[in-house]
Amino acid sequence: MNDFGTALNGHFYAIGVGPGAADLLTVRAVNLIRGAHTIIAPRSERADESQSRLAIAPYLNGQEVIDHAYPMRRDEEATMRCWQAMADVIVARCRAGQAVVQITLGDPLLYSTSCYLIDLVRAALSDAQVHVVPGISAFQAAACRFAEPITLQEDRLVLMSATDLDAVERALDECETLVLYKCGKKLADLVRLFERRGLAGQLRVACYVEQDGRQALLTDPQAIAAYDSGYMATMIVHVSRRKWQAPA
Amino acid sequence: MNDFGTALNGHFYAIGVGPGAADLLTVRAVNLIRGAHTIIAPRSERADESQSRLAIAPYLNGQEVIDHAYPMRRDEEATMRCWQAMADVIVARCRAGQAVVQITLGDPLLYSTSCYLIDLVRAALSDAQVHVVPGISAFQAAACRFAEPITLQEDRLVLMSATDLDAVERALDECETLVLYKCGKKLADLVRLFERRGLAGQLRVACYVEQDGRQALLTDPQAIAAYDSGYMATMIVHVSRRKWQAPA
Repeated sequence: MNDFGTALNGHFYAIGVGPGAADLLTVRAVNLIRGAHTIIAPRSERADESQSRLAIAPYLNGQEVIDHAYPMRRDEEATMRCWQAMADVIVARCRAGQAVVQITLGDPLLYSTSCYLIDLVRAALSDAQVHVVPGISAFQAAACRFAEPITLQEDRLVLMSATDLDAVERALDECETLVLYKCGKKLADLVRLFERRGLAGQLRVACYVEQDGRQALLTDPQAIAAYDSGYMATMIVHVSRRKWQAPA
Repeated sequence: MNDFGTALNGHFYAIGVGPGAADLLTVRAVNLIRGAHTIIAPRSERADESQSRLAIAPYLNGQEVIDHAYPMRRDEEATMRCWQAMADVIVARCRAGQAVVQITLGDPLLYSTSCYLIDLVRAALSDAQVHVVPGISAFQAAACRFAEPITLQEDRLVLMSATDLDAVERALDECETLVLYKCGKKLADLVRLFERRGLAGQLRVACYVEQDGRQALLTDPQAIAAYDSGYMATMIVHVSRRKWQAPA
């Protein structure tokens, strides 16, 4: 059944490498990375190194690695221009017979830079030459460190960014577990919101989870509010539990 | 940084093995499974084989594998009795110095049997002896097969079971992507609901994704409504997109 035994010449693979630890890549991701000619490693223009590149370091054996800085502004046009340039490189290399991989932290279809590339490359090549390999997302790795269920039985999960606090508060009424990404700069505001809703004891924050030497796990509301986390902060809010309803 | 190099004696590991393909385990999961003395492989009492056991077959080298059938009824008491019995076995073996692993399809903290075991084993041993290893959940594997983004920019994801159709419909108003688990018996009802909401063209259904020879991918509403999927059906509904809002 395994149609991903090795990277095929002329094909493109968008690969999730998980949150940062080299042993949280899937076996499929490792096999494809080992067999690729070119690896695209994105990093934000503000970062001095690519976390995704660190994650794959043990699996490099001569592949060409292209470091690709992308804008961290919420600027649709600049973002698309940046990824079109990268897609052009990928398509040219695939047409020249290379197996090309783009690595991305987490899962390539959850808030990932891969989402832009996949469509652009598919439009230029064909559906059959473009493949996506799932990866462990930060919220999964964070939840494992706290060893508490995310969802059980009839629970509903909402996963969203913390940028819109009104939307965050509305989500509390329609889920049992709320996961917030991109809460770096909002931690103090979020703690205030959840204190008001009686949920201050239900907060779990993981920063740089599974990244070498930097991982921080927080449950104390005051510590969370005061934490200077940068960008890579994930918050899990255990709102309630929704047990099995009466049998249908 | 890697504190999961091998399974420690006296410790318990709840490990997600992903949706079914052997190469969608993480490297961490493989290392721990290879180093375990005992592996608990759950299967529903209705299943004639354990899908999680098939997923780890290439990594077995003499470990004892215990097949553990659990009830598929929504019966809290029977469920807890079943898992307490299993927890007793795990705790006894850990106390005897074994490294014990429980494998589970998907991610151990997303609608998984591990959720019951983790708390019971932690109560009997200690937090430090209980570890959780994330796995690729079915919705991630399904989305990769369709190669379409789950969430981008400000999108919100809701993940829930399809058992309560009113809750499903309410969720449409508070997310851009809706993922439904356990929709096997509800596919026709769900198609009717989403047709009414003008979303019939936005449905993606994956059954037995990444399971040998059984995977089915469906996008046609009539085919989805008519499909006899059993239990392992995941539906992704692309409700809308929520672009970056005006800069804060």
